[in-house]
Amino acid sequence: MTLEDFHDDDKLHEECGVYAVHGHEGAAALVTLGLHALQHRGQEAAGIISYDGNEFYNHRALGLVGDNFSSQEVIERLKGHVSIGHTRYSTTGETALRNVQPLFAELHDGGFALCHNGNLTNSQKIRDQLVMRGSIFQSTMDTEVILHLVATSIQDTIVGKVTDAIQRIEGAYALLCMTKEGVIAVRDPHGIRPLVLGELDGGYVVASETCALDIIGADFIRDVDPGEMIVITDDGIQSLRPFPPTRQQTCIFEYIYFARPDSFIDGVSVYEARKNIGKELALESHVESDVVVPVPDSGVPAAIGYSQESGVPFELGIIRNHYVGRTFIEPGQQIRNLGVKLKHNANKAVLEGKRVILVDDSLVRGTTSIKIVEMVKAAGAKEVHMRIASPPIGYPYFYGIDISQSKELLAAQMDLDEMAAHIGVDSLAFLSIDGMYKAMGQEGRNPDAPQYCDAPFTGHYPTQIDDYEDHVVDVPRFMKPKKAG
Amino acid sequence: MTLEDFHDDDKLHEECGVYAVHGHEGAAALVTLGLHALQHRGQEAAGIISYDGNEFYNHRALGLVGDNFSSQEVIERLKGHVSIGHTRYSTTGETALRNVQPLFAELHDGGFALCHNGNLTNSQKIRDQLVMRGSIFQSTMDTEVILHLVATSIQDTIVGKVTDAIQRIEGAYALLCMTKEGVIAVRDPHGIRPLVLGELDGGYVVASETCALDIIGADFIRDVDPGEMIVITDDGIQSLRPFPPTRQQTCIFEYIYFARPDSFIDGVSVYEARKNIGKELALESHVESDVVVPVPDSGVPAAIGYSQESGVPFELGIIRNHYVGRTFIEPGQQIRNLGVKLKHNANKAVLEGKRVILVDDSLVRGTTSIKIVEMVKAAGAKEVHMRIASPPIGYPYFYGIDISQSKELLAAQMDLDEMAAHIGVDSLAFLSIDGMYKAMGQEGRNPDAPQYCDAPFTGHYPTQIDDYEDHVVDVPRFMKPKKAG
Amino acid sequence: MTLEDFHDDDKLHEECGVYAVHGHEGAAALVTLGLHALQHRGQEAAGIISYDGNEFYNHRALGLVGDNFSSQEVIERLKGHVSIGHTRYSTTGETALRNVQPLFAELHDGGFALCHNGNLTNSQKIRDQLVMRGSIFQSTMDTEVILHLVATSIQDTIVGKVTDAIQRIEGAYALLCMTKEGVIAVRDPHGIRPLVLGELDGGYVVASETCALDIIGADFIRDVDPGEMIVITDDGIQSLRPFPPTRQQTCIFEYIYFARPDSFIDGVSVYEARKNIGKELALESHVESDVVVPVPDSGVPAAIGYSQESGVPFELGIIRNHYVGRTFIEPGQQIRNLGVKLKHNANKAVLEGKRVILVDDSLVRGTTSIKIVEMVKAAGAKEVHMRIASPPIGYPYFYGIDISQSKELLAAQMDLDEMAAHIGVDSLAFLSIDGMYKAMGQEGRNPDAPQYCDAPFTGHYPTQIDDYEDHVVDVPRFMKPKKAG
Amino acid sequence: MTLEDFHDDDKLHEECGVYAVHGHEGAAALVTLGLHALQHRGQEAAGIISYDGNEFYNHRALGLVGDNFSSQEVIERLKGHVSIGHTRYSTTGETALRNVQPLFAELHDGGFALCHNGNLTNSQKIRDQLVMRGSIFQSTMDTEVILHLVATSIQDTIVGKVTDAIQRIEGAYALLCMTKEGVIAVRDPHGIRPLVLGELDGGYVVASETCALDIIGADFIRDVDPGEMIVITDDGIQSLRPFPPTRQQTCIFEYIYFARPDSFIDGVSVYEARKNIGKELALESHVESDVVVPVPDSGVPAAIGYSQESGVPFELGIIRNHYVGRTFIEPGQQIRNLGVKLKHNANKAVLEGKRVILVDDSLVRGTTSIKIVEMVKAAGAKEVHMRIASPPIGYPYFYGIDISQSKELLAAQMDLDEMAAHIGVDSLAFLSIDGMYKAMGQEGRNPDAPQYCDAPFTGHYPTQIDDYEDHVVDVPRFMKPKKAG
Repeated sequence: MTLEDFHDDDKLHEECGVYAVHGHEGAAALVTLGLHALQHRGQEAAGIISYDGNEFYNHRALGLVGDNFSSQEVIERLKGHVSIGHTRYSTTGETALRNVQPLFAELHDGGFALCHNGNLTNSQKIRDQLVMRGSIFQSTMDTEVILHLVATSIQDTIVGKVTDAIQRIEGAYALLCMTKEGVIAVRDPHGIRPLVLGELDGGYVVASETCALDIIGADFIRDVDPGEMIVITDDGIQSLRPFPPTRQQTCIFEYIYFARPDSFIDGVSVYEARKNIGKELALESHVESDVVVPVPDSGVPAAIGYSQESGVPFELGIIRNHYVGRTFIEPGQQIRNLGVKLKHNANKAVLEGKRVILVDDSLVRGTTSIKIVEMVKAAGAKEVHMRIASPPIGYPYFYGIDISQSKELLAAQMDLDEMAAHIGVDSLAFLSIDGMYKAMGQEGRNPDAPQYCDAPFTGHYPTQIDDYEDHVVDVPRFMKPKKAG
Repeated sequence: MTLEDFHDDDKLHEECGVYAVHGHEGAAALVTLGLHALQHRGQEAAGIISYDGNEFYNHRALGLVGDNFSSQEVIERLKGHVSIGHTRYSTTGETALRNVQPLFAELHDGGFALCHNGNLTNSQKIRDQLVMRGSIFQSTMDTEVILHLVATSIQDTIVGKVTDAIQRIEGAYALLCMTKEGVIAVRDPHGIRPLVLGELDGGYVVASETCALDIIGADFIRDVDPGEMIVITDDGIQSLRPFPPTRQQTCIFEYIYFARPDSFIDGVSVYEARKNIGKELALESHVESDVVVPVPDSGVPAAIGYSQESGVPFELGIIRNHYVGRTFIEPGQQIRNLGVKLKHNANKAVLEGKRVILVDDSLVRGTTSIKIVEMVKAAGAKEVHMRIASPPIGYPYFYGIDISQSKELLAAQMDLDEMAAHIGVDSLAFLSIDGMYKAMGQEGRNPDAPQYCDAPFTGHYPTQIDDYEDHVVDVPRFMKPKKAG
Repeated sequence: MTLEDFHDDDKLHEECGVYAVHGHEGAAALVTLGLHALQHRGQEAAGIISYDGNEFYNHRALGLVGDNFSSQEVIERLKGHVSIGHTRYSTTGETALRNVQPLFAELHDGGFALCHNGNLTNSQKIRDQLVMRGSIFQSTMDTEVILHLVATSIQDTIVGKVTDAIQRIEGAYALLCMTKEGVIAVRDPHGIRPLVLGELDGGYVVASETCALDIIGADFIRDVDPGEMIVITDDGIQSLRPFPPTRQQTCIFEYIYFARPDSFIDGVSVYEARKNIGKELALESHVESDVVVPVPDSGVPAAIGYSQESGVPFELGIIRNHYVGRTFIEPGQQIRNLGVKLKHNANKAVLEGKRVILVDDSLVRGTTSIKIVEMVKAAGAKEVHMRIASPPIGYPYFYGIDISQSKELLAAQMDLDEMAAHIGVDSLAFLSIDGMYKAMGQEGRNPDAPQYCDAPFTGHYPTQIDDYEDHVVDVPRFMKPKKAG
Repeated sequence: MTLEDFHDDDKLHEECGVYAVHGHEGAAALVTLGLHALQHRGQEAAGIISYDGNEFYNHRALGLVGDNFSSQEVIERLKGHVSIGHTRYSTTGETALRNVQPLFAELHDGGFALCHNGNLTNSQKIRDQLVMRGSIFQSTMDTEVILHLVATSIQDTIVGKVTDAIQRIEGAYALLCMTKEGVIAVRDPHGIRPLVLGELDGGYVVASETCALDIIGADFIRDVDPGEMIVITDDGIQSLRPFPPTRQQTCIFEYIYFARPDSFIDGVSVYEARKNIGKELALESHVESDVVVPVPDSGVPAAIGYSQESGVPFELGIIRNHYVGRTFIEPGQQIRNLGVKLKHNANKAVLEGKRVILVDDSLVRGTTSIKIVEMVKAAGAKEVHMRIASPPIGYPYFYGIDISQSKELLAAQMDLDEMAAHIGVDSLAFLSIDGMYKAMGQEGRNPDAPQYCDAPFTGHYPTQIDDYEDHVVDVPRFMKPKKAG
């Protein structure tokens, strides 16, 4: 089974994965592997910085980790027993090397590197203040705001400076810093983005997901707590709590779409969560049918769950072309018009004459869905019932995912019947919000204190969103009363 | 669901896919798409030649079709309404541009291009004769032998010259030629390699597999017959039979592993064939167990069939990293040792404490299987029962697949118990040869006149194998009487 | 006739050329040409920034101007009527893109670009202070110190901020800044590095040398005065004097070696200066001989002067290979040993049996001279008399030229006889210091107030050299009393 | 002093240089150096093949020798004690790698490599015959005709086969072949193209010019005779004469323009020949003047001769930009219009108010001359008298130089006065044909048996020119009677 797709315009995109190794020879080689396991979180660029007790070594490149970091020459250049790395997907701004993390600066007390997964929601405001006092920015990334806050802090210690900086910022982040003294890892107060701690041969590993511990055989210790700052030095680990306590609200989209199915986040298997979602979906909206067919690859676990709950056989009715990931990135117009077939083909042997349950993980713009449904019908399917393994997305999101405009979202523009007609299916159903919480083992959503960050579905944002306040719209269309006939 | 893996040393590799379009504007753009759909048959290089009534246009490149042929600039350069293309995996010889097909030559009667999928078994012998008379070879490919046979033929017409040439060669091939007059397509007398004919907007398409008709929306007309030569000109199609009739023996490995699951070969769905194989496997060798887990991605259809027949649930117990295809091609030694985890990870949530049926499509060297099993056990599986969706491979193969040495084949070296111990499983079972024929809808193998080319399993070669006679060994180990305790 | 050599380890290297155009459409295309004419001042990298009234456009690249800036695509991207550019040779530090000028920063009042030719002698000291207050440096260039001084200045206007900055720095520089309001050009108080002002179609041009005005057909207005700051805006030109008056001391090496022979510096033709030097040399140290042969190409003008003064015919006794400039940059060891012949060959027809006056512009390490002399003798020269068109170099130099260590200088290690023996000539003579001043039209050197910066010959530095104080040594060997036999 | 220019549209271009080393370890490294010294004969591409007793090693690349062959890695790959190489300028046909020499083929008796300098005048005719019998050409080069003639020869030995081949071809060539047995070198019957034999440490060297012996310190043995075939094996050297004796007619353009000034051809120094030409020119057409100024770099030796004969001082009145060779190869239109200044600048200090003798080596299209003269006048020259160091070029040339159309030649279109007016000079004079022969040490041209191949000046072709017969025109304009006023 494979992982998520990349460069699909009809999917949401995570912005980053982070990884650190402390206290292990060949730290950068391990970071390379860790980032490779986190490649689904960002395919645009990657960077690794290491430290060998004397010097910092740095390599950053546009493109995949494997293409840029797997040569012996690169790995040997990145010497040392401490290293942090980052893999990036950027939704905005130019794709330039200067926008590739980790960032590095020679501060007064020595070299300082940092990278983060997530997005700050007040970075523009702080940036303006810093430029006013003479700070010179070299990138367009919000990450650099943190760097300048650290550089200009008047605290004495590096831990003090980093604390100073993170107390100024708002948003979602899993942050890694590296200095001569060691590694500092911080998870934002709400724990919106995931971060885990592991151990390998007596050294420490910090990663966005557990699958990136598995790849090097590191043992999982625990999730980093929301609002926790972990300081790793040669003397061991220290846990600090620089924020007032607040409620955890992990991003539920990590379970639905972003994380790898073999990862565990805050103790819950992503694969099991998706299968449970498929089961809830079958309980909520099953119809008579002959086959359950996933939209590959991200719809597969939910389709298996749906098949197991409904008893309708699971079949590969859509075959995906492996090679599309890296290809046709700049297609000619005539090829672009041919659309989805570059990536998928209907498996006629499974679909012809059948009533098909088509399971997809989410519905964003609907552009791909239209083509998939058309293809399935052309292959002879008698009926097509689309089942979406998440609730309708009606709100933009500002924590490191690329939906910042409501107007691009289908569910913000149409009601359910309109969407079904638009996509061309015989029936369409989304998972309910409570169904989603049930699949996560909750009794339902607690409206007063939601257990997860579910902003794309509910418009409820756990933090201040200063820079984005004018992006949020009214009630999405699918929530409004049905138009009168 | 995804397609086959590439650059896996523990899999067999097809050597090529071929594609032709005649009588359609933008023929080369369609060939690009067709080759993209055939990318699983060869990822090393690709080439396309087109003709616009005046000139031939040529582009060849090492690497994937999408990376090299999808830009507007390349496509616009390949003008015309006739085009042929080729995608290549090479097992031997240098990976140089001069070894990329289609080959092209200015013959006395004008430009002549050709490409083929398959392998000639007497090319060395003919090559020696041609060099003796003064022919100069520019590549190390057997394909070039055909080119020189055509160039030196004393027949008057191009059809006559091609006929001359193919009557001299032995082996397996799906051959495409292009001249100013049109396209010539030939399938070898036994039909070992597949070739299909399609139609789009009144023009003709020839392709290795039906999935490459689907991608451009072409209609399937029929399989090219074994030994048939189809001549496509502006006047239409002509079917010639330049060989004496002989028995069809399509390569059964196309169904087991090479072809895409959404293709139909000689009327049989590859996906259904694989599911049937999984069902036969369950009938032949089922044991009590909790989950059926495929080795992704090629084991998936058989695992679905096994699950449906046995009633044991199908689960994604092994997660594949999408990004590995193109990456870590030159890993450092320290990364190489980490082995299979670059590509796969165990899904602990599914495996822990379970009795696992592990389904893979074939067993070649066993190197990957050892690591997969080790990983599944480390994730907590209580028992691992490996089921192979094909019979043991005990013989080399010379028709366009890269096993030419028995000594690399596990089944040629060990008996069943030795293999199970070597791989580290609690039990190991292969599909029987008759089971394989049953899955294909036969009553069993006809030993006097086998219905398929099954040489890797039986050592029965349908053609002369002049160049390779000393490659074939005695009886493989797994067929010999068990060693005495 | 050609310009100076590049990548010759036995020559001194200038560090930069600068160029600005204000008030002319296609400003960046003109800057490209200007930098091309200044290519002899630095071949390692180049950068151009332009401004079109709305946005700044930036292109920087390692390598030659022509290779990186002459394509239509690059030129069209660099829009606008204002542009500055820089071509660079770096003697220290990594050759990385981040070290390519012009530097650019978004300051509080908008975009600010700058570049300079020369070297600051107190940049390390200032840099330390800036980092202490939180400034983050992105390069290792002294130029960036000026940028941060401007960014953190509390003056209100950009002219005020730049004035603030240059009053803090010591050293030699020709500095260009660009903002939304226009261009600011500054020549250091002593005028050590050259800078000229020109005019084209009503717009202004600033350049390191007049040859870079010629290339675009711009008219020469005047040299920028030492210590002058010229502010060019849409309202015209303004001349400011931000420094207390001090004595001009242009670097005399510009005349001897760095500048192009077709340039005029402070009113003096470089070509005539070199010819005069050759004449002085003939007057001071002529011996009977048959031919005057220049070491190409920089020795040619002095050799012509020598020939005209002495009446001995000028002949091309050494032929230079044009193609060497860009080639054999990473030769194998076996090629490296073959040495100088890659670049020069003896012209036997001119040398055989002759008494040869060999004229070179300067003597630095002597490594090339040894090989040249050996080659000339092997071609049959009866006698070789080397005449150096400058005095012995005994001191390091810190104003933008790459001699910072006395120990690499032949004249710091040996007396005249030792040098002659070392190089293998029948006689060796340098130009005297007073001879050099006479060639420049002076009566001789004024020891109390030297008319030029002649530090490499005299150890007299016009500015503070804080960062380099420990680099200067005692008396060079050639000045000491002769060793007793 | 430097060598000839490259990529100057207003100059003629040589097509190739060839080089062989036999019997010296590291033969390919020596060939690299030899080709570097021959780079002026072709800058477009280069190739080297070596043989180590077992295998042939091949490297070919577009671009300069130094850029592509000087790395340790390339040199180490080209193993062996025998090697041949080629550097190429192509005037027609695509600049593709398949058109880079040496060509190589596996013939019946083993590997065979060849390369040549020159041009065949009946290659098209032979090529047609070879294709008719089934030979497949892979390039568009005439060289490949020789390869196929060798491959299809029915002689027993390789020397016999090569003899067979060269007896079929017409034209000018210096040909090198390499087999397992050694090297074969052939100079065409008229000796139109030069070829010399040298010796290094007991091994043999063959080169287009003596300067390429000098670069590696090889001793000159002798020129290869016209019509001589030299066979070099481990047993030593053998000289064969496969043609009937005929009159030598070396291309006189080698002396005028193509060869390096430090080379000797058939015993005559190229530098001295050019100086003598300058002297003849002064004798024939001197006028009162103040300075003699060469058009750099190829006009320099003639200008020195002119100055010495006339007593008018030689000055560098035009300065050439070194860096232009490799740059601005694809200039934007706006840069192209700026024209010649990219490459040259007037040296005002020398020209202002002066009567200038401007010496250039030849006049082809006149486009550059117009710009040079305009520039010299703009710098203040009072009078400009152009003196061309060769006779008018009125005829195309087919022996390896790129003038195949009379209509591009100024002298074929205009008489002397028209040319002077066109170029804008106060007077214009060419060297007379007899003057040219006198400079070569002859009493004048022998019209019945010209001592050199002087076809561009006289229209007298020493060989059959089958492929080009329709290229030759009537009497050039400059030879016709003056138009009546």
